[in-house]
Amino acid sequence: MVLVATRNPLNMGAVARAMSNFGALRLRVVNPYEKAYREAVSAVGASRVMREAAEFPSVKEAVADCSLVVGTTAIRHREIKHPLRSLNQAGPLLRKWLAKGKVALLFGSEKWGLSNEDLSYCHWVLHVPTRTENPSMNLGQAAAVCLYEIARGRHSRVEGIPKLPARMETVDRITESLLRCLKGCGYVAARKEQLAEIKLRRLVRRFALEEADAEVFLGMVRKMEGRLVPGKGQKEGART
Amino acid sequence: MVLVATRNPLNMGAVARAMSNFGALRLRVVNPYEKAYREAVSAVGASRVMREAAEFPSVKEAVADCSLVVGTTAIRHREIKHPLRSLNQAGPLLRKWLAKGKVALLFGSEKWGLSNEDLSYCHWVLHVPTRTENPSMNLGQAAAVCLYEIARGRHSRVEGIPKLPARMETVDRITESLLRCLKGCGYVAARKEQLAEIKLRRLVRRFALEEADAEVFLGMVRKMEGRLVPGKGQKEGART
Repeated sequence: MVLVATRNPLNMGAVARAMSNFGALRLRVVNPYEKAYREAVSAVGASRVMREAAEFPSVKEAVADCSLVVGTTAIRHREIKHPLRSLNQAGPLLRKWLAKGKVALLFGSEKWGLSNEDLSYCHWVLHVPTRTENPSMNLGQAAAVCLYEIARGRHSRVEGIPKLPARMETVDRITESLLRCLKGCGYVAARKEQLAEIKLRRLVRRFALEEADAEVFLGMVRKMEGRLVPGKGQKEGART
Repeated sequence: MVLVATRNPLNMGAVARAMSNFGALRLRVVNPYEKAYREAVSAVGASRVMREAAEFPSVKEAVADCSLVVGTTAIRHREIKHPLRSLNQAGPLLRKWLAKGKVALLFGSEKWGLSNEDLSYCHWVLHVPTRTENPSMNLGQAAAVCLYEIARGRHSRVEGIPKLPARMETVDRITESLLRCLKGCGYVAARKEQLAEIKLRRLVRRFALEEADAEVFLGMVRKMEGRLVPGKGQKEGART
């Protein structure tokens, strides 16, 4: 469970409590409001989860060792560019992934949700089906509902998932190297770099790489980078 | 949704918000802490539900027009005398009942849960499966999880339920008349009356009466009462 820019200590404590209820014990927080983080440590029934919570300076670092990263949204005014699944569709899929590796479930701030930048680290996006007239859930309640669904009965068929899914750290290294390649070859103009990076990140995640393949692919991209980016990587003459 | 003796206004507001999210708009409160009720009215996203909430002096009155009454529990130290269903088993059943009539879902106070007296008005009891190490959920989160499950996909087979289930008002009239009968005939001793009443209430609920049958049954019990309780009901000579 990854909380990004959470503002309210009660909400952070509530998320931790629900995690403890449903057996999701690893909380990671990114850029929390100082007060929220400090006060939540004393939340009822959440002590262990809060005590062991880890703080990260960025979403990228918080999800680096995960194999699947899923964002959450109330789908309001934002145009979602990711595959969108309702929670009951997502449940069986999340359980399957959890059997193979770490899954990060991201929740944004109470006010703004996840930014496009945050979402670019996600493979897909999950929403809890709610009434059109009042779609916006309380953070602690949304987390509880998601955790309940994930812990729910373990009987359902699921879409295929890779054998040993790649960790995000590897996927990010691919993305970064690839971006440098694309800049190096002029595909990406310097002034459009930020947007390109976000698009690229989504693209690479859609590959749904296995770890072994990701390592190989990273090697390829690195090699290209050595050619495309002057003064970087292997020299021409290094090949023997 | 019936909240019994809720203490914390934040929790009451959270329940109302989740109700609004999932389209359960009728909140009933029994014996709330005054402060909880007053402050919850201003909860975010819950205004309509709280504005239209109704207060009742007892559980009995709060569920009088319902066809099914379900209690909730974290099953800790209490010995449950009712049929117990986990939320994922309960979901399809609750949806089926909701298609036929009103269903009351009872939540007790944050501190004590529902009393045995409260539970005696329930047909069965529901629990959200949680970790043994930390089974106790926050009230607002437990309500959200239950409402999510009830609103969840509508595909599943269910146990048989009566065609037009009896309203609790009728069931209570049966229970009360029957109790008077049992006292009148000496089955129930005056000093054990309270316990007997609770047991009887559970018993009559297990009958799972249809409304038409309940009316007929009530007529029968009333008739017996006229005989068993001196000075009450029809006189001997009334039969012609």
